[in-house]
Amino acid sequence: MDVQEIALEDLDVNAFIDQQVKAINEAVADGVAVNALSGGVDSAVVTLLGHKALGERLKTIFVENGLMRAGEPEYIVGLFNGMGVPVVLVDAKDEFFGALAGLTDPEEKREAITQTFYKDVFARLVKDSGATNLLQGTNFTDVEETVAGIKRQHNILAQLGIDTEASYGYKVIEPILALRKPGIRLVGKALGLPEEIYARPPFPGPALAARVIGEVTPARVALVRQATAIVEEILVDSGAFQYMAILHEDRVTGIRDGRRDFGLQIEVRCWETQDAVTADPTALPFKTLQALASRITGEVPGVVSVTYGIATKPPSTMEVV
Amino acid sequence: MDVQEIALEDLDVNAFIDQQVKAINEAVADGVAVNALSGGVDSAVVTLLGHKALGERLKTIFVENGLMRAGEPEYIVGLFNGMGVPVVLVDAKDEFFGALAGLTDPEEKREAITQTFYKDVFARLVKDSGATNLLQGTNFTDVEETVAGIKRQHNILAQLGIDTEASYGYKVIEPILALRKPGIRLVGKALGLPEEIYARPPFPGPALAARVIGEVTPARVALVRQATAIVEEILVDSGAFQYMAILHEDRVTGIRDGRRDFGLQIEVRCWETQDAVTADPTALPFKTLQALASRITGEVPGVVSVTYGIATKPPSTMEVV
Repeated sequence: MDVQEIALEDLDVNAFIDQQVKAINEAVADGVAVNALSGGVDSAVVTLLGHKALGERLKTIFVENGLMRAGEPEYIVGLFNGMGVPVVLVDAKDEFFGALAGLTDPEEKREAITQTFYKDVFARLVKDSGATNLLQGTNFTDVEETVAGIKRQHNILAQLGIDTEASYGYKVIEPILALRKPGIRLVGKALGLPEEIYARPPFPGPALAARVIGEVTPARVALVRQATAIVEEILVDSGAFQYMAILHEDRVTGIRDGRRDFGLQIEVRCWETQDAVTADPTALPFKTLQALASRITGEVPGVVSVTYGIATKPPSTMEVV
Repeated sequence: MDVQEIALEDLDVNAFIDQQVKAINEAVADGVAVNALSGGVDSAVVTLLGHKALGERLKTIFVENGLMRAGEPEYIVGLFNGMGVPVVLVDAKDEFFGALAGLTDPEEKREAITQTFYKDVFARLVKDSGATNLLQGTNFTDVEETVAGIKRQHNILAQLGIDTEASYGYKVIEPILALRKPGIRLVGKALGLPEEIYARPPFPGPALAARVIGEVTPARVALVRQATAIVEEILVDSGAFQYMAILHEDRVTGIRDGRRDFGLQIEVRCWETQDAVTADPTALPFKTLQALASRITGEVPGVVSVTYGIATKPPSTMEVV
């Protein structure tokens, strides 16, 4: 791959927007494009760039995979509708949980989500839409980490030699491939995204499936969804780059009502980083850690233990799987 | 069970020692007693009470089960020899690891260690010694938690209706059954134990096996032993009641030399407590947490992630299995 990074200090936001809008127009020509909106800043920026370039000829789809945070599909569809951008909400929960059943290996889980999304659900939607192009929010860090073999991002296809036109029936356009998160946020702000979205902590492609060690079932996703809501509520003003709750597969001993309870453990991580390449755990006040533990054990059924991630990246990664 | 607790404020240390020495003498009569020294304050106090009562008629055995901390067997035998108390060191590593092979359930692991210790190794040693009595360091919290069903302590037998005389060939004497840790420490101090022992943070009966989630193998014990040494070195002056490293079975994503490394996670716990019935995680300075994570990921092979336990007891317990 020969993508050149546009460093933050070299980024002319308005020129970048004009350039990408023009490039999308040229690539799609008289055709129709689709894109998947996930709610993260990357896909939100791509949606607005595509909408600016193509107007009604961009069909934006929000796939409800059952792995989202509480209320997330409704919130994102509402927000974009509020900005004048139509979004189609597609419920594909059963397909995703069907594909994930019985899988515990992180790579197999990622692969099941990728395949279900691109090959089954999205390919079908694209085919039905008659679109010839897919707009996708791949960014520079995604490419770098995938090429380095650190992490298989869900949205890397062409860079790995996958011919999307032959495999899936559409050509991929990646307008923000040269940017990292800080640059993408600036572009989002300039495009009129509200701060809730352009400054949003990143959320992984496989969504809450990336926050579940072991098998991803509706019940286990429901637990980590509840813990995630608590973590986000408590840490929203922390100023951290990203924060998350992770449901472990390991069982740990606890006590409920004076009796032994072999229960669940939730790990909380909260990261400080400039570029997501290296990162440090946030030095949260101990009172905040206590509040996290108290609410998670008090509210999430079966959780008897909470930990806080204290290792740096590297050797850790920010996500757990 | 009808054991009455002696509360700390009611404890007359010297009277307690005289009383227990007399009781041991009466129970053993002209016989011989054995006891197992583990290195914890409980068994250390019992060893000294027994030695005071019986002199050479007490045979103290240190069983090296392969689950101890680095250098622990040598240190404890040396220390008691220095106090004039003979200790026999018995290597039973292979028997313990043989019994633990393939076991992942915490109760089965505890049971394998209990059975290997009492029924195999120790019963054989007792039989060879001709002893009629076993001195044991069961304390009030052990009994309470076992009766409440919170945790099956390794050293609770008679209280569960197990007739040790019929099952194992000896009668059990439990001199510190009415005391909790703070009282036991006072008795140890009065008996002349050095502070390194009487103020020692508690360590569980199943030793490092209690710090390994999943199968207990020599290799996995070696990893948690190394992490434990780091945690103890860094937290020795923390003033905390107990601190520990736990090897998880869950695998987590990390990066080594720029490449993905699906690695191990160590959880650190550090507890503040008065009575071990309820406990709070210690509010360690964040610099200390960073030092723990940095040294553990830097020195323990394969560890890419470190967490710190932030839940209270209850609903957590202090140990993880």
